[in-house]
Amino acid sequence: MSFIKTPAVPVESINPKVKDCEYAVRGEIFNHAQRLQEELEKNPGSRPFDEIIYCNLGNPQALGQKPITFFRQSKILSTLTGKSTGAYSHSKGVKGLREMIADGIALRDGYPANPEDIFLTDGASAAVHMILQLLIRSENDGILCPIPQYPLYSAAITLHGGTLVPYYLSEANNWGLEVFELKGRLDWARENGISVKAMVVINPGNPTGQVLSESNQQEIVELCRKEGLVLLADEVYQDNVYVKDKKFISFKRIIKSVYREDEISLVSFQSISKGYYGECGKRGGYMELCGFREDVKDQIYKVASVNLCSNTSGQILASLIMNPPKPGEESHKLFFSEKEAILSSLGRRAKALEDAFNSMEGVSCQKAEGAMYLFPRIKLPNKAIEAAKKASMVPDAFYALRLLDATGLVLVPGSGFGQVPGTWHVRTTILPDESKIPAIVSRLKAFHESFMREFQD
Amino acid sequence: MSFIKTPAVPVESINPKVKDCEYAVRGEIFNHAQRLQEELEKNPGSRPFDEIIYCNLGNPQALGQKPITFFRQSKILSTLTGKSTGAYSHSKGVKGLREMIADGIALRDGYPANPEDIFLTDGASAAVHMILQLLIRSENDGILCPIPQYPLYSAAITLHGGTLVPYYLSEANNWGLEVFELKGRLDWARENGISVKAMVVINPGNPTGQVLSESNQQEIVELCRKEGLVLLADEVYQDNVYVKDKKFISFKRIIKSVYREDEISLVSFQSISKGYYGECGKRGGYMELCGFREDVKDQIYKVASVNLCSNTSGQILASLIMNPPKPGEESHKLFFSEKEAILSSLGRRAKALEDAFNSMEGVSCQKAEGAMYLFPRIKLPNKAIEAAKKASMVPDAFYALRLLDATGLVLVPGSGFGQVPGTWHVRTTILPDESKIPAIVSRLKAFHESFMREFQD
Repeated sequence: MSFIKTPAVPVESINPKVKDCEYAVRGEIFNHAQRLQEELEKNPGSRPFDEIIYCNLGNPQALGQKPITFFRQSKILSTLTGKSTGAYSHSKGVKGLREMIADGIALRDGYPANPEDIFLTDGASAAVHMILQLLIRSENDGILCPIPQYPLYSAAITLHGGTLVPYYLSEANNWGLEVFELKGRLDWARENGISVKAMVVINPGNPTGQVLSESNQQEIVELCRKEGLVLLADEVYQDNVYVKDKKFISFKRIIKSVYREDEISLVSFQSISKGYYGECGKRGGYMELCGFREDVKDQIYKVASVNLCSNTSGQILASLIMNPPKPGEESHKLFFSEKEAILSSLGRRAKALEDAFNSMEGVSCQKAEGAMYLFPRIKLPNKAIEAAKKASMVPDAFYALRLLDATGLVLVPGSGFGQVPGTWHVRTTILPDESKIPAIVSRLKAFHESFMREFQD
Repeated sequence: MSFIKTPAVPVESINPKVKDCEYAVRGEIFNHAQRLQEELEKNPGSRPFDEIIYCNLGNPQALGQKPITFFRQSKILSTLTGKSTGAYSHSKGVKGLREMIADGIALRDGYPANPEDIFLTDGASAAVHMILQLLIRSENDGILCPIPQYPLYSAAITLHGGTLVPYYLSEANNWGLEVFELKGRLDWARENGISVKAMVVINPGNPTGQVLSESNQQEIVELCRKEGLVLLADEVYQDNVYVKDKKFISFKRIIKSVYREDEISLVSFQSISKGYYGECGKRGGYMELCGFREDVKDQIYKVASVNLCSNTSGQILASLIMNPPKPGEESHKLFFSEKEAILSSLGRRAKALEDAFNSMEGVSCQKAEGAMYLFPRIKLPNKAIEAAKKASMVPDAFYALRLLDATGLVLVPGSGFGQVPGTWHVRTTILPDESKIPAIVSRLKAFHESFMREFQD
């Protein structure tokens, strides 16, 4: 009846997989934080805080961390090799850089790595997308994912049309991974007609911060082998371990020490955005494939080639983080002192925040053994849960929104990562500048006390 | 019966959309070229040529083009704004950079641009993927694509599970676009139960090099409005026009001069990899959305946020190519001379190669008005077609392989882009260093003569 055609794209007409995907790390709380920041810029003093502190995202340099000198000065590497950073590279990445990464992996694991099995990508997220796109054919294909999990996995599985098969990490057991839980979930999925293709393990954990024990890793590998699952090992926090009694061991090393090449398929993801380097904006990362057939690797290479290549600055940085200066080399002294300063400070910040949460009424927080996060559990009073319901909000999002409005601190509600039903959590990074931690702790505690008082049952 | 499980990923078990997608620009011919290059490095003199010349990919700096001084020196911009290039940015890109791009678009078109409608991406390819993922729900959703086309489109449509609805460009009409052809294809698609969601137009054309006339663009826009199609305007060659009687006009300008904001939906893609800048390895680009509803833009933003952000160096370069130095500014003189030198040389190279093809027996080549390619038609003798069949090859791939083996020149078979059945083409870039063009022309001609002699009917 109208003379005007409706615009071509009503939201009802778009891909439902796009509509269904969710990513809480930059969700509603984050959007609200950005509005608050604009408001503060226009009207300083209009809020009970001066600045917004973004603890929602592992983004160290946004919170003041300085780049490691060596990684930035070594940009000359690109000119030294005579390669132009302005040209498309090989779709897996510049071969010389992949060779450097393979050397670094070999040194880390004690087993050789093949540069042809390494694919450089614009951050690890792009690699995760590529592999999930490869594995998922329909909603009958399942991917085992930890709960809580980094929501890239749930978002990507939804976008690619598969089914997330959850397994719960055991909070009481410092977020450890229990094999009987895995087996139960696998049986459940199969009884429901889901063919489980792969299992995601995040080690050190995001958002949970645990570092898996070697024996736990061995159990996981054996399960994947027996059940024919591809092991997707998110190892982007491999340089972030803060406790003396734990160390990072790659899944590749676990596998190589026991199995033959063709017995199990592994993808290991690494990123330049984490560790002590935190070069998030440069978007670099890689995946290493082990135990994949040549014809399948050819398919992955083809998909990589459709997008030509990842950015060369990110590629160079990926080669450098896997090949940092060695003792005796000219750059080593400064590099080592910068690295140690960052890692020991991260360890102290993790401990200070952990202690703060554990001192708060109704809050319990597991140890941050590694990664960049804490995931404290908050026993919310029934009145708070009621108030959230009235505001049509998930209770932990209600808590996080109140916290943001009162303090300027941006945390992510636990519901964005998944949690045992009826439990509530928040995730915070440990990244604010160390000098700010005492003030943050005070604000957190003051807010929490007043929140608990307001809603006491 | 075996004690060993089969490896988790036989190629038969992977996503058939991945298996089905094809991307000829880095296909079999390219792989063969890389093997030849390795062979030449090991045994110099083992072939009748000294080097492999990659004319398969629009990759200027790989063929010796120097970066524009201004774009590389202006990297200090990042420090001037106080922003760290090592931090994740806003998922659409740094706001200040989007504002610079919006200013550049406004200056180009004479109509304002909104920074909130600009999404910065790792090259234009990533933006194309995002939009196709948004629009395609199933194989019943169709995307109108030119034939010949840049195979990113066919590959991405296959990966996202949609149907490519082809429309043929008119070679006789210098690869022009005919609206009656479009309407016929649209009717055909609808009769076959395909809901056509969008239309891709590449202007200037890849692989065909044509620059659309303003009246042709107006017809296209009116058709998209009437039929409710999203116009996907691939405008990455907007700075590559070599003929005096044509100029680049953005589809946004065409639309804004006639229609209201809500009458038609347009996505314009731009890249830092093309133009006179050719910063391919830096992976920068953007898309500008016009006439999209807020709720749909929110969905696009959500998908962008899952991957956090595009690389910041690429973002900075995208802001600079849309805001180059202006007359009177300090950097303008050098910038302008470098830009003009590159563009005038590209024009001369295009003309020299076009003339060479047109002087060859059975070859006809349309004018390269713009972009970076020529797409000559080759009337292959029946005996060559028979020989190709015996070798289980597509005839133009057979020709391109013979050419590579004889000369070291890497062209892409026309079959990788699509062509009218029974016609054969090759695509070459115009990018080899100008000093090499005469030698390339001689080699091309000598090869072609001997090929035609070998297979004469």
